[in-house]
Amino acid sequence: MPTVKRDTYTPDSLLSVAVRVFNERGYDGTSMEHLSKAAGISKSSIYHHVRGKEELLRRGISRALDGLFAVLEEVPAREGRAVERLEHVTRRTVEVLMAELPYVTLLLRVRGNTETELWAMSRRREFDQRVAELVKQAAAEGDLRSDVDARLATRLLFGMINSIAEWYRPDRVAHNGAAGGDSSASGGSNTSAEVAEAVVRTAFAGLRTS
Amino acid sequence: MPTVKRDTYTPDSLLSVAVRVFNERGYDGTSMEHLSKAAGISKSSIYHHVRGKEELLRRGISRALDGLFAVLEEVPAREGRAVERLEHVTRRTVEVLMAELPYVTLLLRVRGNTETELWAMSRRREFDQRVAELVKQAAAEGDLRSDVDARLATRLLFGMINSIAEWYRPDRVAHNGAAGGDSSASGGSNTSAEVAEAVVRTAFAGLRTS
Repeated sequence: MPTVKRDTYTPDSLLSVAVRVFNERGYDGTSMEHLSKAAGISKSSIYHHVRGKEELLRRGISRALDGLFAVLEEVPAREGRAVERLEHVTRRTVEVLMAELPYVTLLLRVRGNTETELWAMSRRREFDQRVAELVKQAAAEGDLRSDVDARLATRLLFGMINSIAEWYRPDRVAHNGAAGGDSSASGGSNTSAEVAEAVVRTAFAGLRTS
Repeated sequence: MPTVKRDTYTPDSLLSVAVRVFNERGYDGTSMEHLSKAAGISKSSIYHHVRGKEELLRRGISRALDGLFAVLEEVPAREGRAVERLEHVTRRTVEVLMAELPYVTLLLRVRGNTETELWAMSRRREFDQRVAELVKQAAAEGDLRSDVDARLATRLLFGMINSIAEWYRPDRVAHNGAAGGDSSASGGSNTSAEVAEAVVRTAFAGLRTS
């Protein structure tokens, strides 16, 4: 995005620019000066919208968390056998990750010690634990294989899901160094429903035919 | 590791310290001053062993790559049906990742533009492509389900494998914010053989019993 001057900025468009810069430079490495340059507006204009960069971080992460937690409230995530609910949550988590890619990427990379970062990490653990409970319940109902530990299964499932943020790039060629696969191929060539279905099939039914 | 003065330093022990610091601060964020402090020896002593930090990066990444490429040369990776070879490579890649955790972590995080970083990214893609070819061959032999695209399957497989570096911590409690699962549990409670077997079962046979 070119750094041209703009007459008007909405909180949403400022957030979008800030999240992009946070993902490129890291949150710690981003100054208000960087945000001002990327948005093409003065620092005082940014302060008109937000108290500082931590508020932008909180808003960006909230957007990811709202999308993820909403999945847990969907009817197919709340009713039926645990394994079916788990498959639904898996599918929809992939879809939310791909639809809200910059925001979920920001959430996945948070590691710091500010109040907002600690809150983000705690909310992320809460989401992970809700899914881990579904895994345990599905195992208790006999629908998951007993020779893979439930905690490990949860970690591998999230590993597969979260890794999508490393290579999926909507509408452009995947960057080099992406995890696995043909790096010359477009990361945008699979729809989010296709990727979600592939994750569910791989994780629950397995890649082997026999 | 305390930053005490040492009388002697071997190239291997210096490398081990450097790789730890690179993983903590990022390669770009690490100066010779940081390495000198962490190793507890003077900068001129470090220059006695290596030309600079890029040589330490190259050595650290070489150690990871040597371990990974050696897997492809093992007999079970070269002989038999492609799906069996693929399962062997998957299992052994997990074992190498866990045995050489700091070195593989360094490789997975490389993103920069120095000659060494570009070389590392290119070698990593080469490894990924060797595995992608195995996936394609196994699919062509009818041993992998046809409703998951081979490229996507490779990416999800590497996603699962590489994510282990995010939470596995030998002999100590896993750090918070780890991907998935019960964050209060020890990351070292599973042996590398157990984790490798769980990855192979999940990816190839699937988590579901039915």
